[in-house]
Amino acid sequence: MTHLESLDTFFTEKRNDHLDQLKDFLRIPSISALSDHKADMQKAAEWLKDSFEKAGLENVSIEPTDGHPVVYGDWMHAEGKPTLLIYGHYDVQPVDPLHLWESGPFEPEVRDNKLYARGASDDKGQVFMHVKAVEALMHENGGQLPINVKFIIEGEEEVGSPNLEKYIEENKEKLAADIIVISDTGMYGPGKPAICYGLRGLAGVQIDVRGAKSDLHSGIYGGGVQNPIHAISEILASFHDQEGTIAVDGFYEDVRPLAEEEREAYAALNFDEAALKEEIGVPELFGEKGYSYLERTWTRPTLEVNGVFGGFSGEGIKTVLPSEAGAKITCRLVPDQDPEDIVAKLKAHIEKHKPAGVTVEVSEFDKGKPFITPFDHPAIQAAGRSYEKVYNVPTAYTRMGGSIPIVAAFDEILGLPVVLMGFGLSSENFHAPNEHFHLENFDKGLRVIGDYYYELAELPVDELKK
Amino acid sequence: MTHLESLDTFFTEKRNDHLDQLKDFLRIPSISALSDHKADMQKAAEWLKDSFEKAGLENVSIEPTDGHPVVYGDWMHAEGKPTLLIYGHYDVQPVDPLHLWESGPFEPEVRDNKLYARGASDDKGQVFMHVKAVEALMHENGGQLPINVKFIIEGEEEVGSPNLEKYIEENKEKLAADIIVISDTGMYGPGKPAICYGLRGLAGVQIDVRGAKSDLHSGIYGGGVQNPIHAISEILASFHDQEGTIAVDGFYEDVRPLAEEEREAYAALNFDEAALKEEIGVPELFGEKGYSYLERTWTRPTLEVNGVFGGFSGEGIKTVLPSEAGAKITCRLVPDQDPEDIVAKLKAHIEKHKPAGVTVEVSEFDKGKPFITPFDHPAIQAAGRSYEKVYNVPTAYTRMGGSIPIVAAFDEILGLPVVLMGFGLSSENFHAPNEHFHLENFDKGLRVIGDYYYELAELPVDELKK
Repeated sequence: MTHLESLDTFFTEKRNDHLDQLKDFLRIPSISALSDHKADMQKAAEWLKDSFEKAGLENVSIEPTDGHPVVYGDWMHAEGKPTLLIYGHYDVQPVDPLHLWESGPFEPEVRDNKLYARGASDDKGQVFMHVKAVEALMHENGGQLPINVKFIIEGEEEVGSPNLEKYIEENKEKLAADIIVISDTGMYGPGKPAICYGLRGLAGVQIDVRGAKSDLHSGIYGGGVQNPIHAISEILASFHDQEGTIAVDGFYEDVRPLAEEEREAYAALNFDEAALKEEIGVPELFGEKGYSYLERTWTRPTLEVNGVFGGFSGEGIKTVLPSEAGAKITCRLVPDQDPEDIVAKLKAHIEKHKPAGVTVEVSEFDKGKPFITPFDHPAIQAAGRSYEKVYNVPTAYTRMGGSIPIVAAFDEILGLPVVLMGFGLSSENFHAPNEHFHLENFDKGLRVIGDYYYELAELPVDELKK
Repeated sequence: MTHLESLDTFFTEKRNDHLDQLKDFLRIPSISALSDHKADMQKAAEWLKDSFEKAGLENVSIEPTDGHPVVYGDWMHAEGKPTLLIYGHYDVQPVDPLHLWESGPFEPEVRDNKLYARGASDDKGQVFMHVKAVEALMHENGGQLPINVKFIIEGEEEVGSPNLEKYIEENKEKLAADIIVISDTGMYGPGKPAICYGLRGLAGVQIDVRGAKSDLHSGIYGGGVQNPIHAISEILASFHDQEGTIAVDGFYEDVRPLAEEEREAYAALNFDEAALKEEIGVPELFGEKGYSYLERTWTRPTLEVNGVFGGFSGEGIKTVLPSEAGAKITCRLVPDQDPEDIVAKLKAHIEKHKPAGVTVEVSEFDKGKPFITPFDHPAIQAAGRSYEKVYNVPTAYTRMGGSIPIVAAFDEILGLPVVLMGFGLSSENFHAPNEHFHLENFDKGLRVIGDYYYELAELPVDELKK
């Protein structure tokens, strides 16, 4: 029996049990952005700690940070074999607008072989798969693993990992490893495995515009004073030209030009723009001229307004001239843009476009550097092989539009190659209502991960250096 | 004892009692815009009906409409004397943002001789004063009044009076009168009585912009599709130039030029722009070039965004690319702009400025025509005299920036002169948190209204024709 056959037997037998366990994990509303979910964050961390212990990991602990804790566990008895650091997160995004969910975000439900719940795909489901892979290999090898593993699962990824960098700095020795694997990215498409070798970075600001000290009657005062909503609209409209190109001075200055071979590789993927348009339901795709959809979302920076607010948004009409308005903005950054530099440029732009008659305040959100890694690294190629064995198709080497801010930190502080091994699908509504996870990829992913641990055991440690 | 002396004795004696009654009225959260306050609307109408009956009015009834009911009452036994129709409203504005109220919006509280509550000034307090004036005159004249009165107090003024016009049309005979008086406007300033002879009209639309059918992850999709917040910001920013002039084609086309004598009269009021700036707490006043603050707010049209919404506005950051965004807009109109024409121009403008990659839907709010009346009409001059007797200063003849949409309807359907006799102050936060009513004007206003009823009794009915 091959490793893969034995993994298959194990995961087939345990499937219902595993799904029940994952549902328990998903029932915990661990929303890191909202302070009234603090107790749920602790509960999720404890659930994970228990699952580590049951899987056979050692030195399991919930490690405090200045924010939500990190859950750590390891197994370090495979002498002379590579050490794999596994990173993921147990926190999830907020769930509004709640009325658009077909089943409760924290009431996991399987429909049509998809598991619906906030975090099903991003990232509780994928973290859970690594824990179960360890459990399977322990079972198969009489309580032993073919490699050394260290788990570090944090609770603040969805709010920009404000405390993890410090944690890594302070625990450099403890976290020492040969490779890092992160399962928080997506497949190229249904049945099409992909290894992502580049991620966009993140920088963001909140803009708060204030006019009068109190809301005013729009009849009495209208026309006499600046309206903060007019002011924020002017600022927001100034960020792009009508074709979607960002109009902030110097914004594109440090963008590394796209290599011709990357353009060709992406073109060869035959991405179906028409199908995407249909799938997400937009009248047309839209963005910077001169770049394909994949190029725009993988390799070009963005400036997106994530929220705008001001005045009355309830039912009916309220003839108010509001005292304040604001917006939340994030930029996705690509090599070699620097988040600090971009925030400085945003601030200069806002200052330059500040309308008369109001005050404008800009506050910064957390930042993450863009990341790129060579795709011919042996640990990445080994991952590609494991995918191919389970999915029976070639693995695509891609980049991704999202940000895992901590990837750059791992890269910088620990100096290790990062393998992004994802099982999500872009249609799975991460960060939106009705988030779900295709169980086909849950099932196959468990086998890929298990096999990958065996593949890594075959690699000489000194060939893994970056 | 003059009428005024006798009114003074009556109102001094009853003051605490009257304040307690008004507080009861203000405790009813009669917010017409919010459908879950329907029962409160009925409760407020019943409260008013009781107060009419106690004051000695006859034929008192709560009259159903397609929306919230009208409360009617009359006293018609002063043969050969003028008939005064008194219009007001018992509905109030929504109260959000609630956290900015120093005491509950529906827990009336007197602080520093000001009565704080939603509706204290706009318009429950002023409606109450007319009821109490009737009561006082009944008391003084052995159950008789010197004039005939009809009260028509509606419950939908704050949502644009969608059903009152039909009610007036259907009750033309019942509402027949010689003059209409409305106390829903303001004084020129503390201690400075004013009769308002012009009001701005109202037209408004809601703009809903839709992109993808569901919220998207701003990393995965950012740069690939249009962001509805970018689209609404572009549309909103296109409505004005940077100096505050409205950029909608033909918007100013039908605006009646300001007469030189009006400009002079307003200039003579020596309006203190610096004091206003201080009072409302803005860094500077702002608006259309070439017009003073009073000219802008009394005689020039506006386009104000009353609310904007889209994406995430909670605590922290959510990296979402929202599926929809929108805004609520109202225009204040001046003679001779037509609300229907303005809405058509707004729609054409929005269509012309519609960004790519989204769909845009425009829905209309209720409309009101602008209104102007000759200020030398005897009923207006009589009101001026009553003010002067109580306040001991000359009455100013002004216009106002606000809209009472129904004034134009009264004007058109009943063809009667409208007297706008207000006791509010512009600093009283109507439509905003901490609405209040200066009790000095409550006290003086009761006496002005009582005296005015006597003044009207002296006017020959046939001189009141418009």
